[in-house]
Amino acid sequence: MSETNAPLRIAIAGLGTVGAGVIRLLNTNRDLIAARAGRAIEVVAVSARDRSLDRGVDLSGYAWEDDMTELAGREDVDVMVELVGGSDGPALAASRAALKAGKGLVTANKAMIAHHGLALAELAEAAGVPLKFEAAVAGGIPVVKGLREGTSANALTKVYGILNGTCNYILSEMEETGADFSETLAEAQKLGYAEADPTFDIEGIDAAHKLAILAAIGFGAKVDFAAVRVSGITQVRAADIAQADALGFVIRLIAEADAHEGKLLQRVRPCLVAKDHPLAPVDGPTNAVVAEGNFSGRLLFQGAGAGDGPTASAVVADLIDIARSEVSAPFSMPVAQLQALPPAEPGHRMERTYIRFTVNDRPGVLAEITAAMRDADVSIESLIQKGRAHEGGEVLVAMVTHEGPEANVRRAIDLLDGSDSLTGDPLVLPILPN
Amino acid sequence: MSETNAPLRIAIAGLGTVGAGVIRLLNTNRDLIAARAGRAIEVVAVSARDRSLDRGVDLSGYAWEDDMTELAGREDVDVMVELVGGSDGPALAASRAALKAGKGLVTANKAMIAHHGLALAELAEAAGVPLKFEAAVAGGIPVVKGLREGTSANALTKVYGILNGTCNYILSEMEETGADFSETLAEAQKLGYAEADPTFDIEGIDAAHKLAILAAIGFGAKVDFAAVRVSGITQVRAADIAQADALGFVIRLIAEADAHEGKLLQRVRPCLVAKDHPLAPVDGPTNAVVAEGNFSGRLLFQGAGAGDGPTASAVVADLIDIARSEVSAPFSMPVAQLQALPPAEPGHRMERTYIRFTVNDRPGVLAEITAAMRDADVSIESLIQKGRAHEGGEVLVAMVTHEGPEANVRRAIDLLDGSDSLTGDPLVLPILPN
Repeated sequence: MSETNAPLRIAIAGLGTVGAGVIRLLNTNRDLIAARAGRAIEVVAVSARDRSLDRGVDLSGYAWEDDMTELAGREDVDVMVELVGGSDGPALAASRAALKAGKGLVTANKAMIAHHGLALAELAEAAGVPLKFEAAVAGGIPVVKGLREGTSANALTKVYGILNGTCNYILSEMEETGADFSETLAEAQKLGYAEADPTFDIEGIDAAHKLAILAAIGFGAKVDFAAVRVSGITQVRAADIAQADALGFVIRLIAEADAHEGKLLQRVRPCLVAKDHPLAPVDGPTNAVVAEGNFSGRLLFQGAGAGDGPTASAVVADLIDIARSEVSAPFSMPVAQLQALPPAEPGHRMERTYIRFTVNDRPGVLAEITAAMRDADVSIESLIQKGRAHEGGEVLVAMVTHEGPEANVRRAIDLLDGSDSLTGDPLVLPILPN
Repeated sequence: MSETNAPLRIAIAGLGTVGAGVIRLLNTNRDLIAARAGRAIEVVAVSARDRSLDRGVDLSGYAWEDDMTELAGREDVDVMVELVGGSDGPALAASRAALKAGKGLVTANKAMIAHHGLALAELAEAAGVPLKFEAAVAGGIPVVKGLREGTSANALTKVYGILNGTCNYILSEMEETGADFSETLAEAQKLGYAEADPTFDIEGIDAAHKLAILAAIGFGAKVDFAAVRVSGITQVRAADIAQADALGFVIRLIAEADAHEGKLLQRVRPCLVAKDHPLAPVDGPTNAVVAEGNFSGRLLFQGAGAGDGPTASAVVADLIDIARSEVSAPFSMPVAQLQALPPAEPGHRMERTYIRFTVNDRPGVLAEITAAMRDADVSIESLIQKGRAHEGGEVLVAMVTHEGPEANVRRAIDLLDGSDSLTGDPLVLPILPN
């Protein structure tokens, strides 16, 4: 076929845990990789902020560049591996420079691909070089490949899954321990499952980056990160998890996309997931993606969503594909053929919903809530009122609705807006269909 | 890249449910496929035994060949799709003819690839044409691609999974209904989940075909179907499933392979699977494969293991890869680089084991069994004796051993061989490590 035997020469920009992991992987599995790739994959140059740092890998055989953009332009490099991160700034500049210089680009940078993936793909097309980003979504799970190639024969009806390991760790820990959100987040930070500034993870933005990439590939759509409707997990209480459990559900942060009637719906939000759904047993920092195709049926891809080993595994798989010359369109079809799908309004979508109110313990509150439900045409399937634990304590009212339009639930919540019966904002969580 | 815009012209040999499914898929998703493949995929000719049969798809636009080998040699064909089945005979002859004539080959034929895959890969290499067989393993799940490309950066420690939908359907039905094997098999046959002659499925041979293919790709080994140690599910009783359940397990037919110290172990056998293992919730005709890589960690691929839609999805994904010129070595590396790994002797492997005896209800039987365990150095973790349901009825003794060498369990069973305390052969099932 079209492979040559000359080594594939790579440059690595960014030597954090993933960068060091890629070097360690290339060293550890050297012979195997050469056999599978049809040729050696050789690091020729690296770049990072601090040259003096000990990263636990021997860098003495590689040229050092202080400037990433210089690295990207080196004559002796075939492919740049971008592991710096950040949607813009130096990572983007160096990535553009690499593609413009006719180098292939492999990146783990979900934010950059979610924001600039199409522009980078256009540069790659123009230069006739590969752009690959398996590591940008779901760590070591080959789900970019899964959608780009595995389900390529299918019109997908839906893509959804658990795309953020930090949130999944926190939610499954809360489930396990009964502890509340803030306490569990602090514990996760101590253990390295959450960053010092966890905003991108717990607010759902990281999952939204990944979802926007998967949706583009899965539905042949232009990446549209701005259209992802995002809510994070900070409002989920231990009591919600306990109620969900009693009702036969777990709570997971679900990223989901579908395309209907030429419109793309992309959402990240905590959902109730029935215990017999394939995503329910996915716990800890594990990720999982479900793709439903019109011929394949439901496919599940599951594995480690982060970590230096799994992420390096994805980066090097991309390099092996490039070494094998298996390198057609990054988003599964040329950019010009991706459709600009307008965002769908979810209001008419039918869902079952979990609604939790915290209320003052006084007569008439339940009547007020149930009247709002009736007036908004929301049909209640089950309702639990949990009495206060101590005098003056909050009372929790949790309910599951029958299937109905999402807009009705929002209308019911609006009707209750400003009521002095409520002691805080209600929490509305959809129930993931089985 | 290297795609051309000329249509990829295919011939389909075999028009059973899968062949008709491929035609239906190519028609239904025509535009999507052309966009993703970079060019149209067009059926130009077909061949099957009976031209007059109504297959629910319009064949009038395709040339008809009575002889598959003629089909394989047609000037106007780029790729032959072989969907006839059978390890030898016409399928193999036509497949060879296609490759020798410089046509690509896509096949769903697990038996043929398990027996002749290397020879066919050599023909493909010599002719410089693609050979692809995603549909031969686990239906619509892209697991051949998953191992060939998704985990390509990894040395795998293990590959294992549920590869036969018929067995999984029967075992999970037995679990659900409490019915015995033969009754459940009959029901499965009625529902189309088992064939009239179910031998290949229930004896584990079909799973062994698929395992031999995955092991070759995963471990860079020459396909060695003959070395797979196979036992089927016919000895599993409703009582075993009930005992397993009481002990926290389900029973699944597990195909597993690993490579240690240059030796390849390949086995298909019913196993006890802990209820919190990712394979435990896999029920009905679903398939699932776990691959454990030295950097990726544990990856799970799950979906429909059979059926015309999922199988067609895999066949057409292969065709799209070919249209995209993503077509390097079928077994992930050239045949000459695949190692001939001798089969491993499992005797020294450490396992926990479930052992079930059916015994006569008389004094001393338990003492005889436990003495044999002691003499073979098998340490018992738990033991249940279940009294007879009626006078003269069989008594069941089930135990779980602590981890120990498999050889010891076999020795204990040998010590009891010929004992008139036993009313039948004991059943020994390993417990899948978590």
